[in-house]
Amino acid sequence: MNVKAAIFDIFGTVVDWRSSVSADLAAFAAGKGLEGVDWLEFAVEWRKLYQPSMEEVRSGRRAWTILDVLHRESLDRLIARYGIKGLSEADVEHMNRAWHRLKPWPDVLEGLKRMKPKLILAPCSNANIALMVNMARHNGFPWDCILGAETARAYKPMPEAYIASCRHLGLPPAEVMMVAAHNGDLKAAKAQGLATGFVPRPTEHGPGQSTDLAADPACVDVAATDFIDLALKLERRRAGAPT
Amino acid sequence: MNVKAAIFDIFGTVVDWRSSVSADLAAFAAGKGLEGVDWLEFAVEWRKLYQPSMEEVRSGRRAWTILDVLHRESLDRLIARYGIKGLSEADVEHMNRAWHRLKPWPDVLEGLKRMKPKLILAPCSNANIALMVNMARHNGFPWDCILGAETARAYKPMPEAYIASCRHLGLPPAEVMMVAAHNGDLKAAKAQGLATGFVPRPTEHGPGQSTDLAADPACVDVAATDFIDLALKLERRRAGAPT
Repeated sequence: MNVKAAIFDIFGTVVDWRSSVSADLAAFAAGKGLEGVDWLEFAVEWRKLYQPSMEEVRSGRRAWTILDVLHRESLDRLIARYGIKGLSEADVEHMNRAWHRLKPWPDVLEGLKRMKPKLILAPCSNANIALMVNMARHNGFPWDCILGAETARAYKPMPEAYIASCRHLGLPPAEVMMVAAHNGDLKAAKAQGLATGFVPRPTEHGPGQSTDLAADPACVDVAATDFIDLALKLERRRAGAPT
Repeated sequence: MNVKAAIFDIFGTVVDWRSSVSADLAAFAAGKGLEGVDWLEFAVEWRKLYQPSMEEVRSGRRAWTILDVLHRESLDRLIARYGIKGLSEADVEHMNRAWHRLKPWPDVLEGLKRMKPKLILAPCSNANIALMVNMARHNGFPWDCILGAETARAYKPMPEAYIASCRHLGLPPAEVMMVAAHNGDLKAAKAQGLATGFVPRPTEHGPGQSTDLAADPACVDVAATDFIDLALKLERRRAGAPT
């Protein structure tokens, strides 16, 4: 394995969407005097609409549409369902951009900075470019470029999302490692010939999480405990030592 | 003018391709014991094939093809024309990647770092993503993402190259400033509603340069002496002062 670039899943793997979205919306609601909504539940409900909204695009039933637009449509539905009144267009847009302001897991920044000198780093997320740019500027993520769904015009786990990322880096898939906290993402990347790295995020879905607690050895090349451990394991691999 | 992002022409505006390519090839040739080629002339001849090669794609006569491939085809032609013998495939690929190793004008890095806290920064070049990523890593350019021809699948000055860059940033064209040392690039950007910034590079083409020595007021919003001056002028605009 001669990995020259690491590309990253973002929602769940790099950032803690559940805590971040709920805290962001709760703070906004408090400032507006909005009461009576459980924002943790709201965040989870919003996320539940994520896969179905992308599936409309993946299936070809809907023309290419970026995630900011899908998020906004889901948000509008939830605002109606929860009966939330009195929000301006600017308010709803601010809420929608909670996804641009997500916060990372505590090991992420140190791990990425440690990988940066030797590896090209990029997100390979279903987010659109503007979302990734704004999130990176909020958090100081040292990406070399923004790859993923909008650049590929395909949502993961479609093969083109992974293949296009390698092509855009000018690298064969075997020299690109997909990093994710989700075995399904890594299985799809492995099927296209990418190297794979797994980092568990056992509280992504809250305290009772039962999925993706451990790497699936069938599709994972390197299993690490967090991003710092992943950086160290990749350094050892480059030095020719067993990991 | 409420500019939130600055996007940059690269060849000539950010990097000194003529000096960089010729010095890179001359050093490589010296190491190989290759003699008898004027590498400054060779670099200029290579660049002369740049616009015609892109025009095949712009015109639709050729399917979308990235610049690394066009550069390589032009290089192969020049190697044949100059009768250069004894190069391996790896040698020619190394030569082709001279464009990945171009060096910036001396004001660029300080200017970009000064702009970075307040502005999203990205290349909007006809180069492909891998070329831009590698050049940025060699030089420390603080891009937030890589935009331009490969992301837009259109070569400047086609309208889509500018429009797609704004769309990918999620910003209206009036909030995106195209920065270039070439009035033609800025004229095309202005036609799509972008703000424009001009920085002269009077020795891009060598000591006898007669083109693009000054900004064309018909298409330039901000004329600066270099990237540091541009950063200062944009700061003054944000503060509401005349530039």
